[in-house]
Amino acid sequence: MEIKSSTRYFAEMIGTFALVFFGCGAAVVSGVSASGPAGIGLLGIAFAFGLAVLVMCYAIGGISGCHINPAITLAMLTAGKIKAADALGYIIAQCVGAIVAAWVLWTIQKGLPGWQAGEWALGSNGWGEGYGAGYNTASAFIAEAVLTFLFLFVIFGATGKWGNGTTAGVAIGLTLTCIHLFCIPITGTSVNPARSLGPAIFAGGAALSQLWLFIVAPIVGGIAAALVWRAMDKS
Amino acid sequence: MEIKSSTRYFAEMIGTFALVFFGCGAAVVSGVSASGPAGIGLLGIAFAFGLAVLVMCYAIGGISGCHINPAITLAMLTAGKIKAADALGYIIAQCVGAIVAAWVLWTIQKGLPGWQAGEWALGSNGWGEGYGAGYNTASAFIAEAVLTFLFLFVIFGATGKWGNGTTAGVAIGLTLTCIHLFCIPITGTSVNPARSLGPAIFAGGAALSQLWLFIVAPIVGGIAAALVWRAMDKS
Amino acid sequence: MEIKSSTRYFAEMIGTFALVFFGCGAAVVSGVSASGPAGIGLLGIAFAFGLAVLVMCYAIGGISGCHINPAITLAMLTAGKIKAADALGYIIAQCVGAIVAAWVLWTIQKGLPGWQAGEWALGSNGWGEGYGAGYNTASAFIAEAVLTFLFLFVIFGATGKWGNGTTAGVAIGLTLTCIHLFCIPITGTSVNPARSLGPAIFAGGAALSQLWLFIVAPIVGGIAAALVWRAMDKS
Amino acid sequence: MEIKSSTRYFAEMIGTFALVFFGCGAAVVSGVSASGPAGIGLLGIAFAFGLAVLVMCYAIGGISGCHINPAITLAMLTAGKIKAADALGYIIAQCVGAIVAAWVLWTIQKGLPGWQAGEWALGSNGWGEGYGAGYNTASAFIAEAVLTFLFLFVIFGATGKWGNGTTAGVAIGLTLTCIHLFCIPITGTSVNPARSLGPAIFAGGAALSQLWLFIVAPIVGGIAAALVWRAMDKS
Repeated sequence: MEIKSSTRYFAEMIGTFALVFFGCGAAVVSGVSASGPAGIGLLGIAFAFGLAVLVMCYAIGGISGCHINPAITLAMLTAGKIKAADALGYIIAQCVGAIVAAWVLWTIQKGLPGWQAGEWALGSNGWGEGYGAGYNTASAFIAEAVLTFLFLFVIFGATGKWGNGTTAGVAIGLTLTCIHLFCIPITGTSVNPARSLGPAIFAGGAALSQLWLFIVAPIVGGIAAALVWRAMDKS
Repeated sequence: MEIKSSTRYFAEMIGTFALVFFGCGAAVVSGVSASGPAGIGLLGIAFAFGLAVLVMCYAIGGISGCHINPAITLAMLTAGKIKAADALGYIIAQCVGAIVAAWVLWTIQKGLPGWQAGEWALGSNGWGEGYGAGYNTASAFIAEAVLTFLFLFVIFGATGKWGNGTTAGVAIGLTLTCIHLFCIPITGTSVNPARSLGPAIFAGGAALSQLWLFIVAPIVGGIAAALVWRAMDKS
Repeated sequence: MEIKSSTRYFAEMIGTFALVFFGCGAAVVSGVSASGPAGIGLLGIAFAFGLAVLVMCYAIGGISGCHINPAITLAMLTAGKIKAADALGYIIAQCVGAIVAAWVLWTIQKGLPGWQAGEWALGSNGWGEGYGAGYNTASAFIAEAVLTFLFLFVIFGATGKWGNGTTAGVAIGLTLTCIHLFCIPITGTSVNPARSLGPAIFAGGAALSQLWLFIVAPIVGGIAAALVWRAMDKS
Repeated sequence: MEIKSSTRYFAEMIGTFALVFFGCGAAVVSGVSASGPAGIGLLGIAFAFGLAVLVMCYAIGGISGCHINPAITLAMLTAGKIKAADALGYIIAQCVGAIVAAWVLWTIQKGLPGWQAGEWALGSNGWGEGYGAGYNTASAFIAEAVLTFLFLFVIFGATGKWGNGTTAGVAIGLTLTCIHLFCIPITGTSVNPARSLGPAIFAGGAALSQLWLFIVAPIVGGIAAALVWRAMDKS
């Protein structure tokens, strides 16, 4: 019996909520520690995002496939692995989950005396002077597109006919960790339009005006991977 | 042949002992390093708690289901996956294991010249001024409830009819790592009434007077997840 | 067809070599970084030891069972899972592997200009004033015995009739990571007589005179776990 | 139906691209952080390289076997597990992937204001005064050869008749993490001629003149492991 659409959309919403809540939350709450043990640093943030995907793959992979990322859903659409109507439902659910996660995180941060939502609040993505190490637009675009290509390359391989269903979630989640180990100083690391949308809505300003890159570059990279695998699968 | 109740309760006791001993011990003994290599920091503490659950899932998962957390046992009771009498036995065993772990850790700390059990000793949970980053009560409650909801959401998904038994323990343990990557500066991270009880008994003071939140919030979050999955399972 | 004893002993020798070489080598070479990126710290050392066991479980688990630790071999003997003659062969092979690893590490360190083998060289275990945080003998003994008990508790559970053969190596290796996350400031973490023997032979002095604790305490803890599981298996 | 050679070579090219891009990229972009959360440090770099191999094992292991390393391909040739013509195709594809990865990384770095390709740029391997901790040539050679021996020892074991296909990729990837936890201060860690070739072409100077060691030592270590396993497999 097929699983109901509403159940699958709900799973995508909770999954994307978890990704943004765990990932951005770890960065905002625990990235730097003023006293006591050292903050989790870039390594901890990279694990927070990657492990969030890893665990959600095993929680909802059997229900919705655990895309929790519009770039993945569009790549799957390109590869003919999801219907257009479903893809739309998935993407809406992902965006809702991400926005709610950012809102809950914002609510929690308001309980920290002296906290103010600054520019780039809540783990927003961005680039250029004043963001991370200050990489330019071309670097940001290349990095996001190439990294999303590699992300989808692993996803198609690990879940495809030559892959292993038991370990696919481990491989996919840890690929996102690798991606973050590379890219946080450049863009904060998105490879996921919904993940960028959530915090940007609350942060506003540059986070919102730079949002386009985190929609376009991941989709370009993801669709490229879908086309490559379509050719490889035939051989 | 069914496994005897006493064996299952014993497994829960050892499992909860291991969780508190590894997790709180890592925080207390290795969190900060005065000399030599850097202490394990918040990232190391997050791995200590999460990996303790991961390994215990594979050690005793086949015996007791490896709850080692009263909030999980009550969520399982809500979902109809454990009998009430057994749930009581589990919870008692979990509390005993946690208290014994805190006692052994306290004994070891007494062998460190100059060590004194201060407020918040032995990795106690708390919040507000003087604890972690100083988040207020509302933030502490929301964080603990939402994170326990996500914890149980993964547990029900990974062990349910759409899950994968081989990797469920990896997913569950690493979810606890994600939770700690988020929440240590807010509450030290409980999502487990027994884990908070053990150290609080020896630390006393605020750790004991704030214990209620680490009983109520995880149970609320856990039961909410049970109700959500009961609805999802029907679809 | 049974695997030849000599092949199994050889596997134990290489496995113990890898454990000591990876673990002590990471501590000695990479623990602290004078310039460039931060050293791996206590967290990195904990992963080096744990992951070394994890990977060796999958490399030689099917050949020798991957004990690579005399305390494990004696616990297995207590549990009736290995013959006495084989246990002797295993332990000799483990000690040889550990000593050769320490020797190769010592050879590599001699190629570092200005390096001198000081007290506690090559990642030796110890305790008391001048070692780690300075914990006393009782704390060192309790920690090593209790942690080895938990190590063997997971090993018997994960490889027993209620365990999962595919993930047992992950659980066992990551238990050793948990153990190191707890214990490095107390004893440097042994839970393995062979691992302590190798460096002590080259370091001499206190590392050698304190070696007895890292033989006695792990064996006590390991045998206790074997007795507990013998009772549990009957239920 | 056998998979076409061109598909397998393409997989090796993408896989080696990913290894060099993730590993060297993490080191160059995120190793040290000037502000905000701490950089990923040696531990993060060790995970970047190891997890890149882990995830690629599950993405392309079923297609090409995921060598993505000429030393592995030559060891497999020695063990009779790949044909000579294929080995040549693999090695060429690996070198192309590594060079392209270094070129893309170089392109991204040019978008960082003030960045200049210095000596040892792009994560080049090297040793001696001015590189890492300053270990001498003998130490560098011994470390690279012994570590590649252990790498291939795990690969042959985990993928051989006594291994477990589901977890082999986890074991192999995390072995590379162990290797990096040991060796970054000595040589930056290669154990892979293609991984050293890519950055060296762009860095030039000493990175290029010292390239020979990262070709010879890994091949020596890898072939030694192949011969050892050929003997063990017969028993």
